[in-house]
Parts: sequence; structure tokens; C-alpha cells
Amino acid sequence: MYALGRHMLLELKDCNKGVLDDLDFLRDCLNEAAICCGATVVGESFYHFSPHGVSGVANIAESHISIHTWPEYSYAAVDVFTCGDDVKPEEAARVIVEKLEAKNYSVVELRRGIIEDSRVSYAVK
Amino acid sequence: MYALGRHMLLELKDCNKGVLDDLDFLRDCLNEAAICCGATVVGESFYHFSPHGVSGVANIAESHISIHTWPEYSYAAVDVFTCGDDVKPEEAARVIVEKLEAKNYSVVELRRGIIEDSRVSYAVK
Repeated sequence: MYALGRHMLLELKDCNKGVLDDLDFLRDCLNEAAICCGATVVGESFYHFSPHGVSGVANIAESHISIHTWPEYSYAAVDVFTCGDDVKPEEAARVIVEKLEAKNYSVVELRRGIIEDSRVSYAVK
Repeated sequence: MYALGRHMLLELKDCNKGVLDDLDFLRDCLNEAAICCGATVVGESFYHFSPHGVSGVANIAESHISIHTWPEYSYAAVDVFTCGDDVKPEEAARVIVEKLEAKNYSVVELRRGIIEDSRVSYAVK
């Protein structure tokens, strides 16, 4: 069995409330995370909610990194979905955990696109 | 325990290869899915790969809907992440499964942002 993608789901609690409400900071954070894991950003969309909270997605050549923040709960839901052997999603996860100063977090990793083809471990999307 | 978000992960196999490589079709599909589940699109990013495949994200006021396609394997990985009681992510999932003509699929649903606050079932992000 081979997987087309690795999908890390981060539950980040007890984060810095200030940065969770700072769209520019979070955009920079996701871009830095993409670079650190070896990914290439091909598009993005960030949105600040009233009165607080940010949703952001970095569309990367290797899939996507998303963040949704609830500053009122010091919580952020982050997804790092990558494919290809040249990308290290755990590096992106590490950067985001550090930048958000998450004092309490969990990470679950799923394998997406399980296919019976030995070539797909090299597939990049 | 209350959850800030519902996250549906769709593994779509044996899809229509043609539509998996059609960026405009997939953009319309995600927009229709957002409308059908009661969500509001606040941004988007779609990208077509060479020689084939599309990555797309609709940033919605209630979180996001993403798709990554591998036409060569008739496969798509779709995520529907929503929050708030007024949105029905299962409706978005139904639309996407139908539009992609997936003959073989699975859906896993996760609850994101489990917090001890009875008010959060109404939180919208």
C-alpha cells in the first residue's frame, strides 16, 4: 500500500491570543512553515472575522496548509496536507506550534489516497 | 464537551477522470457545495498542475473546503471543515461525491476544537 498524501491535523490549545487574531502574522507564519517543510506556495486566502478570529489557507504545490483560529479560546485548528517525498510536513507543524506558542497541543497524522501502486510514493501534487 | 468544528475527510475513488482535471468545473463544484451546505465563500485559490491534477481551496466563513485531485488514479482527497450549527457539511460532501461521480468512497468525520464551554456549539468561524 502506498499513500499519495500525508495529512497532519494539529489541535493547538493555550496559544498566544494576540497572534491568533493577527492576520498578517498568521500569513507570514504559514508561508514560513511552507518554506521550512520544502513546499511551494501557489496561492492563498486569508480572512479576518469580526470581532476576532482568522481563517487562512496556503495553497501549496504539494497540497495545502490551513488555519482557523478562535482567540477567545486560545485555540487554533491547523491542517498540513502534503504529498511527495521531498516535503516534510512535520517541519511545517513544528514552525506553527512554535510561532503560535501553543502550550498544549496534539497532532494526528493520516495517510490520504492509499493506492496499490509503488510509483505513487514519488507523486507530487 | 463541545466542538468548535466538524471536519469531514472524503476519500473519493473511481471518479470521472475528466472532471478531476477541470479547474473551472471543480471551482464551480466547491462553490455549489458551499452554497448547498449553507456556507459563505470569502476567498478561494485554485491551481492546475502540469501535466494533470488540480488543487483548490474555498475559504468559507465557516472554515474551508479543499480538494486535491489525481486524475491518473481517478482519485480526489476532499476536506469539508465547518463550524456553526447553521451549516451542514454532509450536504457539501453529498454534492461533491455526486459531481465527481465517485463510485467508491469513504467519509471520516472528526470533531475539532473540543472545549468545555456549552456556548461553543453556536460559535461560527
